[in-house]
Amino acid sequence: MNLILFDADDLRTDATVDATGVQARHLVTVLKVQQRQQVRIGMIDGPFGVGTVTAIADGRVTLRCTFDRNTPERPEVDLLLALPRPKVMRRLWAQLSALGVGQVILTNAEKVERDYFDTHLLRPEGYRPLLLEGLQQARDTRMPLVSVHKQFRKLIESDLDGLVPSGRRLVAHPGGETSIRGALGTAPGRVLLAVGPEGGWNDFELSLLRSQGFTSVTMGPRTLTTTTACIALLTLVHGHQSSFR
Amino acid sequence: MNLILFDADDLRTDATVDATGVQARHLVTVLKVQQRQQVRIGMIDGPFGVGTVTAIADGRVTLRCTFDRNTPERPEVDLLLALPRPKVMRRLWAQLSALGVGQVILTNAEKVERDYFDTHLLRPEGYRPLLLEGLQQARDTRMPLVSVHKQFRKLIESDLDGLVPSGRRLVAHPGGETSIRGALGTAPGRVLLAVGPEGGWNDFELSLLRSQGFTSVTMGPRTLTTTTACIALLTLVHGHQSSFR
Repeated sequence: MNLILFDADDLRTDATVDATGVQARHLVTVLKVQQRQQVRIGMIDGPFGVGTVTAIADGRVTLRCTFDRNTPERPEVDLLLALPRPKVMRRLWAQLSALGVGQVILTNAEKVERDYFDTHLLRPEGYRPLLLEGLQQARDTRMPLVSVHKQFRKLIESDLDGLVPSGRRLVAHPGGETSIRGALGTAPGRVLLAVGPEGGWNDFELSLLRSQGFTSVTMGPRTLTTTTACIALLTLVHGHQSSFR
Repeated sequence: MNLILFDADDLRTDATVDATGVQARHLVTVLKVQQRQQVRIGMIDGPFGVGTVTAIADGRVTLRCTFDRNTPERPEVDLLLALPRPKVMRRLWAQLSALGVGQVILTNAEKVERDYFDTHLLRPEGYRPLLLEGLQQARDTRMPLVSVHKQFRKLIESDLDGLVPSGRRLVAHPGGETSIRGALGTAPGRVLLAVGPEGGWNDFELSLLRSQGFTSVTMGPRTLTTTTACIALLTLVHGHQSSFR
Protein backbone atom coordinates (compact mmCIF):
# COMPACT_ATOMS: atom_id res chain seq x y z
CA MET A 1 0.00 0.00 0.00
CA ASN A 2 1.84 3.07 -1.22
CA LEU A 3 -1.01 5.51 -0.74
CA ILE A 4 -4.07 5.60 1.52
CA LEU A 5 -7.18 6.55 -0.43
CA PHE A 6 -10.41 7.96 0.96
CA ASP A 7 -13.80 8.82 -0.42
CA ALA A 8 -14.67 12.51 -0.33
CA ASP A 9 -17.62 11.49 1.86
CA ASP A 10 -15.27 10.10 4.53
CA LEU A 11 -13.71 13.49 5.14
CA ARG A 12 -15.13 15.44 8.07
CA THR A 13 -15.58 19.22 7.98
CA ASP A 14 -12.46 19.70 10.15
CA ALA A 15 -10.41 17.97 7.40
CA THR A 16 -9.85 14.80 9.42
CA VAL A 17 -10.60 11.27 8.33
CA ASP A 18 -10.43 7.86 10.04
CA ALA A 19 -8.49 5.01 8.47
CA THR A 20 -10.01 1.69 9.58
CA GLY A 21 -9.75 -1.98 8.60
CA VAL A 22 -6.97 -2.89 6.17
CA GLN A 23 -5.77 0.72 5.92
CA ALA A 24 -5.45 1.11 9.69
CA ARG A 25 -3.65 -2.23 9.97
CA HIS A 26 -1.21 -1.18 7.28
CA LEU A 27 -0.51 2.16 9.01
CA VAL A 28 -0.01 0.53 12.40
CA THR A 29 1.74 -2.75 11.63
CA VAL A 30 3.68 -2.05 8.40
CA LEU A 31 4.37 1.70 8.50
CA LYS A 32 4.32 1.69 12.33
CA VAL A 33 3.08 5.29 12.33
CA GLN A 34 3.34 7.55 15.40
CA GLN A 35 1.53 10.72 16.40
CA ARG A 36 2.24 13.65 14.04
CA GLN A 37 3.80 11.37 11.41
CA GLN A 38 2.89 12.20 7.81
CA VAL A 39 1.70 9.67 5.24
CA ARG A 40 0.78 9.87 1.58
CA ILE A 41 -2.97 10.03 1.01
CA GLY A 42 -5.34 10.66 -1.84
CA MET A 43 -9.00 11.29 -2.47
CA ILE A 44 -10.72 8.82 -4.80
CA ASP A 45 -11.07 10.59 -8.18
CA GLY A 46 -9.53 13.62 -6.50
CA PRO A 47 -6.09 15.01 -5.65
CA PHE A 48 -3.15 13.50 -3.80
CA GLY A 49 -2.32 14.86 -0.37
CA VAL A 50 -0.65 14.41 2.97
CA GLY A 51 -2.24 13.00 6.13
CA THR A 52 -0.84 13.83 9.57
CA VAL A 53 -1.58 11.28 12.29
CA THR A 54 -3.58 12.88 15.10
CA ALA A 55 -4.83 9.79 16.95
CA ILE A 56 -4.30 6.01 16.99
CA ALA A 57 -6.91 4.09 18.96
CA ASP A 58 -9.32 1.15 18.76
CA GLY A 59 -8.10 -0.07 15.34
CA ARG A 60 -8.55 3.40 13.91
CA VAL A 61 -5.98 5.94 12.76
CA THR A 62 -7.16 9.53 12.50
CA LEU A 63 -5.45 11.73 9.93
CA ARG A 64 -5.63 15.46 9.36
CA CYS A 65 -5.57 15.98 5.60
CA THR A 66 -4.22 18.54 3.19
CA PHE A 67 -4.67 18.04 -0.52
CA ASP A 68 -2.88 19.17 -3.66
CA ARG A 69 -4.66 21.54 -5.98
CA ASN A 70 -4.74 19.26 -9.03
CA THR A 71 -6.40 15.93 -9.66
CA PRO A 72 -4.39 13.47 -11.78
CA GLU A 73 -5.81 12.80 -15.21
CA ARG A 74 -7.83 9.71 -15.95
CA PRO A 75 -5.69 7.15 -17.85
CA GLU A 76 -6.12 7.49 -21.60
CA VAL A 77 -6.77 3.84 -22.27
CA ASP A 78 -10.05 1.95 -21.89
CA LEU A 79 -10.48 -1.80 -21.89
CA LEU A 80 -13.28 -3.74 -23.53
CA LEU A 81 -12.91 -7.22 -22.09
CA ALA A 82 -14.80 -10.44 -22.74
CA LEU A 83 -15.60 -11.53 -19.20
CA PRO A 84 -13.10 -14.12 -17.97
CA ARG A 85 -13.99 -16.73 -15.37
CA PRO A 86 -14.45 -15.37 -11.83
CA LYS A 87 -11.14 -16.75 -10.50
CA VAL A 88 -9.26 -14.80 -13.19
CA MET A 89 -11.42 -11.69 -12.86
CA ARG A 90 -10.81 -11.57 -9.11
CA ARG A 91 -7.05 -11.23 -9.61
CA LEU A 92 -7.37 -8.96 -12.61
CA TRP A 93 -9.25 -6.05 -10.99
CA ALA A 94 -6.32 -4.79 -8.91
CA GLN A 95 -3.86 -5.32 -11.74
CA LEU A 96 -6.00 -3.23 -14.08
CA SER A 97 -6.32 -0.28 -11.72
CA ALA A 98 -2.61 -0.53 -10.85
CA LEU A 99 -1.63 -0.33 -14.52
CA GLY A 100 -4.12 2.46 -15.12
CA VAL A 101 -7.37 2.09 -17.05
CA GLY A 102 -10.00 4.76 -17.64
CA GLN A 103 -12.96 2.44 -18.20
CA VAL A 104 -13.45 -1.30 -17.89
CA ILE A 105 -16.23 -2.43 -20.19
CA LEU A 106 -17.08 -6.09 -19.58
CA THR A 107 -18.97 -7.98 -22.22
CA ASN A 108 -20.36 -11.32 -23.21
CA ALA A 109 -19.00 -13.26 -26.20
CA GLU A 110 -19.65 -16.69 -27.65
CA LYS A 111 -16.84 -18.25 -25.63
CA VAL A 112 -17.86 -16.64 -22.35
CA GLU A 113 -19.85 -18.99 -20.09
CA ARG A 114 -23.20 -17.48 -19.09
CA ASP A 115 -22.70 -18.19 -15.39
CA TYR A 116 -19.56 -16.03 -15.26
CA PHE A 117 -21.98 -13.10 -14.97
CA ASP A 118 -23.39 -14.40 -11.68
CA THR A 119 -20.32 -13.53 -9.60
CA HIS A 120 -20.47 -10.81 -6.95
CA LEU A 121 -17.19 -9.55 -8.49
CA LEU A 122 -19.28 -7.67 -11.05
CA ARG A 123 -21.11 -5.68 -8.39
CA PRO A 124 -19.51 -2.48 -7.05
CA GLU A 125 -19.22 -3.92 -3.52
CA GLY A 126 -17.29 -6.82 -5.08
CA TYR A 127 -14.91 -5.00 -7.39
CA ARG A 128 -14.40 -1.61 -5.74
CA PRO A 129 -12.22 -2.92 -2.88
CA LEU A 130 -10.05 -4.71 -5.46
CA LEU A 131 -9.75 -1.65 -7.71
CA LEU A 132 -8.91 0.39 -4.61
CA GLU A 133 -6.15 -2.09 -3.72
CA GLY A 134 -4.55 -1.58 -7.15
CA LEU A 135 -4.80 2.22 -6.93
CA GLN A 136 -3.22 2.23 -3.47
CA GLN A 137 -0.45 -0.06 -4.73
CA ALA A 138 0.33 2.02 -7.82
CA ARG A 139 -0.36 5.45 -6.29
CA ASP A 140 -3.22 6.66 -8.40
CA THR A 141 -6.53 8.20 -7.37
CA ARG A 142 -8.51 7.55 -10.54
CA MET A 143 -11.04 4.78 -9.97
CA PRO A 144 -11.80 3.07 -13.31
CA LEU A 145 -15.39 3.35 -14.50
CA VAL A 146 -16.97 -0.08 -14.83
CA SER A 147 -19.91 -1.27 -16.88
CA VAL A 148 -21.20 -4.78 -17.57
CA HIS A 149 -22.92 -5.74 -20.81
CA LYS A 150 -24.58 -9.09 -21.36
CA GLN A 151 -25.43 -8.41 -24.99
CA PHE A 152 -22.32 -8.09 -27.12
CA ARG A 153 -24.09 -6.96 -30.27
CA LYS A 154 -26.11 -4.27 -28.53
CA LEU A 155 -22.99 -3.05 -26.75
CA ILE A 156 -20.92 -2.75 -29.91
CA GLU A 157 -23.63 -1.44 -32.25
CA SER A 158 -25.56 0.88 -29.92
CA ASP A 159 -23.87 1.62 -26.60
CA LEU A 160 -20.16 1.82 -27.29
CA ASP A 161 -20.13 5.21 -29.04
CA GLY A 162 -21.79 6.70 -25.97
CA LEU A 163 -19.34 5.05 -23.58
CA VAL A 164 -16.23 5.86 -25.62
CA PRO A 165 -17.04 8.68 -28.00
CA SER A 166 -13.58 9.23 -29.43
CA GLY A 167 -10.10 7.78 -29.86
CA ARG A 168 -8.54 4.85 -31.66
CA ARG A 169 -9.98 1.33 -31.33
CA LEU A 170 -7.85 -1.81 -31.30
CA VAL A 171 -8.86 -5.44 -30.99
CA ALA A 172 -6.22 -7.96 -29.93
CA HIS A 173 -6.34 -11.04 -32.13
CA PRO A 174 -3.73 -13.71 -32.89
CA GLY A 175 -4.08 -13.14 -36.64
CA GLY A 176 -4.02 -9.35 -36.27
CA GLU A 177 -2.85 -7.13 -39.10
CA THR A 178 -0.19 -5.13 -37.30
CA SER A 179 1.57 -4.47 -34.01
CA ILE A 180 0.18 -2.01 -31.47
CA ARG A 181 2.94 0.40 -32.34
CA GLY A 182 2.12 0.02 -36.02
CA ALA A 183 -1.59 0.62 -35.41
CA LEU A 184 -1.12 3.65 -33.15
CA GLY A 185 1.50 5.24 -35.35
CA THR A 186 2.91 8.53 -34.22
CA ALA A 187 -0.21 10.24 -32.92
CA PRO A 188 -1.18 10.56 -29.24
CA GLY A 189 -4.74 10.23 -27.90
CA ARG A 190 -7.25 7.91 -26.24
CA VAL A 191 -7.18 4.20 -27.04
CA LEU A 192 -9.92 1.61 -26.59
CA LEU A 193 -8.47 -1.89 -26.44
CA ALA A 194 -10.65 -4.99 -26.91
CA VAL A 195 -9.42 -8.29 -25.45
CA GLY A 196 -11.31 -11.49 -26.21
CA PRO A 197 -12.10 -14.61 -24.21
CA GLU A 198 -9.51 -17.38 -23.69
CA GLY A 199 -10.84 -19.15 -26.79
CA GLY A 200 -10.72 -15.95 -28.87
CA TRP A 201 -13.39 -13.82 -30.55
CA ASN A 202 -15.47 -15.68 -33.12
CA ASP A 203 -15.74 -14.47 -36.72
CA PHE A 204 -19.01 -12.63 -36.14
CA GLU A 205 -17.66 -10.79 -33.12
CA LEU A 206 -14.47 -9.86 -34.90
CA SER A 207 -16.25 -8.55 -37.96
CA LEU A 208 -18.71 -6.57 -35.83
CA LEU A 209 -15.79 -4.97 -33.99
CA ARG A 210 -14.08 -4.18 -37.30
CA SER A 211 -17.27 -2.63 -38.65
CA GLN A 212 -17.26 -0.28 -35.63
CA GLY A 213 -13.74 0.99 -36.27
CA PHE A 214 -11.54 -1.55 -34.49
CA THR A 215 -8.16 -2.37 -36.05
CA SER A 216 -6.96 -5.88 -35.24
CA VAL A 217 -3.52 -5.97 -33.64
CA THR A 218 -1.26 -8.87 -32.73
CA MET A 219 1.45 -9.31 -30.12
CA GLY A 220 3.20 -12.01 -32.11
CA PRO A 221 2.90 -15.77 -32.26
CA ARG A 222 2.38 -16.42 -28.52
CA THR A 223 -1.11 -17.12 -27.22
CA LEU A 224 -1.38 -15.58 -23.77
CA THR A 225 -3.95 -16.05 -21.02
CA THR A 226 -6.40 -13.22 -20.39
CA THR A 227 -4.46 -11.87 -17.42
CA THR A 228 -1.08 -11.87 -19.10
CA ALA A 229 -2.52 -10.50 -22.33
CA CYS A 230 -4.33 -7.63 -20.57
CA ILE A 231 -1.22 -6.59 -18.67
CA ALA A 232 0.99 -6.88 -21.73
CA LEU A 233 -1.37 -4.97 -24.02
CA LEU A 234 -2.08 -2.19 -21.54
CA THR A 235 1.67 -1.85 -20.98
CA LEU A 236 2.29 -1.45 -24.69
CA VAL A 237 -0.44 1.16 -25.08
CA HIS A 238 0.80 3.09 -22.04
CA GLY A 239 4.38 2.82 -23.33
CA HIS A 240 3.23 4.25 -26.63
CA GLN A 241 1.33 7.08 -24.95
CA SER A 242 4.15 7.98 -22.58
CA SER A 243 6.48 8.48 -25.53
CA PHE A 244 4.47 11.66 -26.30
CA ARG A 245 4.89 13.14 -22.82
CA MET B 1 -3.22 -25.86 -23.99
CA ASN B 2 -2.29 -24.88 -27.54
CA LEU B 3 0.53 -27.36 -27.94
CA ILE B 4 1.36 -30.74 -26.39
CA LEU B 5 5.03 -30.86 -25.35
CA PHE B 6 7.10 -33.98 -24.75
CA ASP B 7 10.58 -34.70 -23.50
CA ALA B 8 12.91 -36.26 -26.05
CA ASP B 9 13.18 -39.20 -23.63
CA ASP B 10 9.44 -39.88 -23.86
CA LEU B 11 9.68 -40.62 -27.57
CA ARG B 12 9.95 -44.31 -28.49
CA THR B 13 12.11 -45.55 -31.35
CA ASP B 14 9.02 -46.03 -33.55
CA ALA B 15 8.35 -42.25 -33.20
CA THR B 16 5.32 -42.75 -30.95
CA VAL B 17 4.73 -41.15 -27.59
CA ASP B 18 2.03 -41.47 -24.92
CA ALA B 19 0.22 -38.41 -23.61
CA THR B 20 -0.99 -39.09 -20.07
CA GLY B 21 -2.38 -37.07 -17.14
CA VAL B 22 -3.35 -33.45 -17.91
CA GLN B 23 -2.26 -33.74 -21.54
CA ALA B 24 -4.40 -36.83 -22.17
CA ARG B 25 -7.39 -35.24 -20.44
CA HIS B 26 -7.01 -32.13 -22.60
CA LEU B 27 -6.85 -34.23 -25.78
CA VAL B 28 -9.87 -36.31 -24.84
CA THR B 29 -12.20 -33.87 -23.10
CA VAL B 30 -11.35 -30.48 -24.66
CA LEU B 31 -10.06 -31.31 -28.14
CA LYS B 32 -12.19 -34.50 -28.24
CA VAL B 33 -9.62 -36.16 -30.51
CA GLN B 34 -10.42 -39.23 -32.62
CA GLN B 35 -8.21 -41.87 -34.22
CA ARG B 36 -5.97 -40.43 -36.99
CA GLN B 37 -6.66 -36.86 -35.91
CA GLN B 38 -3.64 -34.55 -35.96
CA VAL B 39 -2.61 -32.23 -33.11
CA ARG B 40 0.14 -29.69 -32.63
CA ILE B 41 3.05 -31.08 -30.64
CA GLY B 42 6.57 -30.02 -29.72
CA MET B 43 9.69 -31.45 -28.17
CA ILE B 44 10.95 -29.60 -25.09
CA ASP B 45 13.91 -27.51 -26.24
CA GLY B 46 13.42 -29.01 -29.67
CA PRO B 47 11.30 -28.51 -32.77
CA PHE B 48 7.55 -28.20 -33.24
CA GLY B 49 5.74 -31.05 -34.93
CA VAL B 50 2.52 -32.89 -35.62
CA GLY B 51 1.17 -35.85 -33.67
CA THR B 52 -1.31 -38.27 -35.23
CA VAL B 53 -3.56 -40.12 -32.80
CA THR B 54 -3.01 -43.89 -33.09
CA ALA B 55 -4.68 -45.10 -29.89
CA ILE B 56 -6.91 -43.78 -27.08
CA ALA B 57 -7.16 -46.09 -24.09
CA ASP B 58 -6.84 -46.20 -20.30
CA GLY B 59 -6.35 -42.43 -19.87
CA ARG B 60 -3.57 -42.47 -22.42
CA VAL B 61 -3.44 -41.05 -25.94
CA THR B 62 -0.76 -42.46 -28.22
CA LEU B 63 0.58 -40.16 -30.93
CA ARG B 64 2.82 -40.88 -33.89
CA CYS B 65 5.13 -37.87 -34.23
CA THR B 66 6.78 -35.99 -37.02
CA PHE B 67 8.92 -32.96 -36.23
CA ASP B 68 10.02 -29.85 -38.11
CA ARG B 69 13.67 -29.47 -38.97
CA ASN B 70 14.33 -26.33 -36.95
CA THR B 71 14.19 -25.61 -33.23
CA PRO B 72 12.84 -22.18 -32.25
CA GLU B 73 15.39 -19.82 -30.79
CA ARG B 74 15.68 -19.27 -27.07
CA PRO B 75 14.07 -15.92 -26.10
CA GLU B 76 16.63 -13.12 -26.03
CA VAL B 77 15.68 -11.79 -22.62
CA ASP B 78 16.79 -13.14 -19.23
CA LEU B 79 15.26 -12.26 -15.89
CA LEU B 80 17.16 -11.67 -12.65
CA LEU B 81 14.43 -11.65 -10.03
CA ALA B 82 14.52 -11.07 -6.28
CA LEU B 83 12.56 -14.07 -5.05
CA PRO B 84 8.92 -13.13 -4.36
CA ARG B 85 6.81 -14.94 -1.77
CA PRO B 86 5.78 -18.48 -2.76
CA LYS B 87 2.15 -17.59 -3.52
CA VAL B 88 3.33 -15.04 -6.10
CA MET B 89 6.09 -17.28 -7.48
CA ARG B 90 3.62 -20.12 -8.04
CA ARG B 91 1.54 -18.00 -10.39
CA LEU B 92 4.51 -16.34 -12.02
CA TRP B 93 6.27 -19.42 -13.42
CA ALA B 94 3.74 -20.13 -16.18
CA GLN B 95 3.41 -16.43 -17.03
CA LEU B 96 7.18 -16.14 -17.48
CA SER B 97 7.49 -19.11 -19.82
CA ALA B 98 4.39 -17.98 -21.72
CA LEU B 99 5.88 -14.54 -22.32
CA GLY B 100 9.25 -16.07 -23.21
CA VAL B 101 12.34 -15.90 -21.02
CA GLY B 102 15.73 -17.46 -21.72
CA GLN B 103 16.91 -17.74 -18.12
CA VAL B 104 15.27 -17.13 -14.77
CA ILE B 105 17.90 -16.23 -12.18
CA LEU B 106 16.36 -16.07 -8.71
CA THR B 107 18.22 -14.22 -5.99
CA ASN B 108 18.12 -13.10 -2.42
CA ALA B 109 17.94 -9.40 -1.48
CA GLU B 110 17.54 -7.50 1.77
CA LYS B 111 13.77 -7.35 1.41
CA VAL B 112 13.39 -11.04 0.56
CA GLU B 113 12.34 -13.18 3.53
CA ARG B 114 14.76 -16.05 4.12
CA ASP B 115 12.02 -18.66 4.32
CA TYR B 116 10.85 -17.89 0.78
CA PHE B 117 13.72 -20.15 -0.30
CA ASP B 118 12.22 -23.19 1.44
CA THR B 119 9.39 -23.67 -1.05
CA HIS B 120 9.30 -26.74 -3.32
CA LEU B 121 8.56 -24.28 -6.14
CA LEU B 122 12.30 -23.70 -6.45
CA ARG B 123 13.02 -27.35 -7.15
CA PRO B 124 12.72 -28.65 -10.72
CA GLU B 125 9.86 -31.01 -9.81
CA GLY B 126 8.03 -27.95 -8.44
CA TYR B 127 8.58 -25.42 -11.22
CA ARG B 128 8.94 -27.54 -14.37
CA PRO B 129 5.25 -28.48 -14.62
CA LEU B 130 4.36 -24.79 -14.26
CA LEU B 131 6.88 -23.67 -16.88
CA LEU B 132 5.57 -26.43 -19.15
CA GLU B 133 2.02 -25.13 -18.68
CA GLY B 134 3.13 -21.68 -19.87
CA LEU B 135 4.98 -23.08 -22.89
CA GLN B 136 1.97 -25.19 -23.90
CA GLN B 137 -0.27 -22.14 -23.52
CA ALA B 138 1.94 -19.83 -25.57
CA ARG B 139 3.18 -22.42 -28.08
CA ASP B 140 6.88 -22.41 -27.41
CA THR B 141 9.27 -25.32 -26.85
CA ARG B 142 12.07 -23.45 -25.08
CA MET B 143 12.11 -24.31 -21.38
CA PRO B 144 13.67 -21.40 -19.44
CA LEU B 145 16.91 -22.23 -17.62
CA VAL B 146 16.51 -21.71 -13.89
CA SER B 147 19.08 -21.07 -11.18
CA VAL B 148 18.63 -20.07 -7.54
CA HIS B 149 21.18 -17.93 -5.67
CA LYS B 150 20.99 -17.30 -1.94
CA GLN B 151 23.92 -14.89 -1.91
CA PHE B 152 23.17 -11.73 -3.85
CA ARG B 153 26.66 -10.30 -3.72
CA LYS B 154 28.37 -13.50 -4.86
CA LEU B 155 25.84 -13.83 -7.67
CA ILE B 156 26.36 -10.32 -8.98
CA GLU B 157 30.13 -10.07 -8.47
CA SER B 158 31.24 -13.59 -9.38
CA ASP B 159 28.60 -15.76 -11.05
CA LEU B 160 26.57 -13.45 -13.28
CA ASP B 161 29.16 -12.98 -16.02
CA GLY B 162 29.28 -16.76 -16.43
CA LEU B 163 25.49 -17.10 -16.52
CA VAL B 164 24.92 -14.15 -18.85
CA PRO B 165 28.17 -13.40 -20.66
CA SER B 166 26.90 -10.72 -23.03
CA GLY B 167 24.11 -8.27 -23.76
CA ARG B 168 22.63 -5.19 -22.15
CA ARG B 169 21.73 -5.12 -18.46
CA LEU B 170 18.76 -3.20 -17.05
CA VAL B 171 17.53 -2.86 -13.49
CA ALA B 172 13.94 -1.75 -12.91
CA HIS B 173 13.78 0.92 -10.24
CA PRO B 174 11.17 3.59 -9.47
CA GLY B 175 13.80 6.34 -9.62
CA GLY B 176 15.37 4.97 -12.79
CA GLU B 177 17.21 7.21 -15.21
CA THR B 178 15.40 6.40 -18.40
CA SER B 179 12.66 4.34 -20.05
CA ILE B 180 13.37 0.85 -21.39
CA ARG B 181 13.13 2.20 -24.89
CA GLY B 182 15.59 4.93 -23.99
CA ALA B 183 18.02 2.47 -22.42
CA LEU B 184 17.91 -0.04 -25.26
CA GLY B 185 18.14 2.56 -27.99
CA THR B 186 18.13 1.34 -31.55
CA ALA B 187 20.34 -1.74 -31.25
CA PRO B 188 19.07 -5.34 -31.08
CA GLY B 189 20.58 -8.06 -28.86
CA ARG B 190 20.20 -9.97 -25.57
CA VAL B 191 18.82 -8.16 -22.53
CA LEU B 192 19.18 -9.09 -18.88
CA LEU B 193 16.42 -7.51 -16.79
CA ALA B 194 16.67 -7.24 -12.99
CA VAL B 195 13.43 -6.89 -11.00
CA GLY B 196 13.61 -6.22 -7.27
CA PRO B 197 11.52 -7.35 -4.30
CA GLU B 198 8.15 -5.72 -3.48
CA GLY B 199 9.94 -3.27 -1.17
CA GLY B 200 12.55 -2.43 -3.81
CA TRP B 201 16.31 -2.94 -4.04
CA ASN B 202 18.27 -1.26 -1.24
CA ASP B 203 21.06 1.24 -1.98
CA PHE B 204 23.83 -1.34 -1.68
CA GLU B 205 22.09 -3.74 -4.06
CA LEU B 206 21.39 -1.00 -6.56
CA SER B 207 24.95 0.30 -6.56
CA LEU B 208 26.36 -3.24 -6.88
CA LEU B 209 24.11 -3.83 -9.89
CA ARG B 210 25.18 -0.50 -11.41
CA SER B 211 28.85 -1.38 -10.86
CA GLN B 212 28.28 -4.54 -12.91
CA GLY B 213 26.88 -2.72 -15.88
CA PHE B 214 23.17 -2.40 -15.09
CA THR B 215 21.37 0.75 -16.26
CA SER B 216 18.43 1.68 -14.08
CA VAL B 217 15.16 2.04 -15.96
CA THR B 218 11.74 3.19 -14.86
CA MET B 219 8.24 2.47 -16.09
CA GLY B 220 6.88 5.74 -14.78
CA PRO B 221 5.36 6.83 -11.49
CA ARG B 222 3.30 3.69 -10.81
CA THR B 223 4.59 1.14 -8.30
CA LEU B 224 3.57 -2.29 -9.53
CA THR B 225 3.52 -5.67 -7.81
CA THR B 226 6.18 -8.20 -8.79
CA THR B 227 3.85 -10.12 -11.10
CA THR B 228 2.52 -7.10 -12.94
CA ALA B 229 5.98 -5.52 -13.16
CA CYS B 230 7.58 -8.68 -14.58
CA ILE B 231 4.90 -9.07 -17.24
CA ALA B 232 5.00 -5.39 -18.14
CA LEU B 233 8.80 -5.18 -18.32
CA LEU B 234 9.21 -8.41 -20.31
CA THR B 235 6.53 -7.17 -22.70
CA LEU B 236 8.39 -3.91 -23.26
CA VAL B 237 11.71 -5.68 -23.88
CA HIS B 238 10.08 -8.16 -26.27
CA GLY B 239 8.28 -5.30 -27.98
CA HIS B 240 11.59 -3.54 -28.45
CA GLN B 241 13.30 -6.67 -29.76
CA SER B 242 10.49 -7.54 -32.15
CA SER B 243 10.84 -4.14 -33.77
CA PHE B 244 14.14 -5.40 -35.25
CA ARG B 245 12.64 -8.50 -36.84
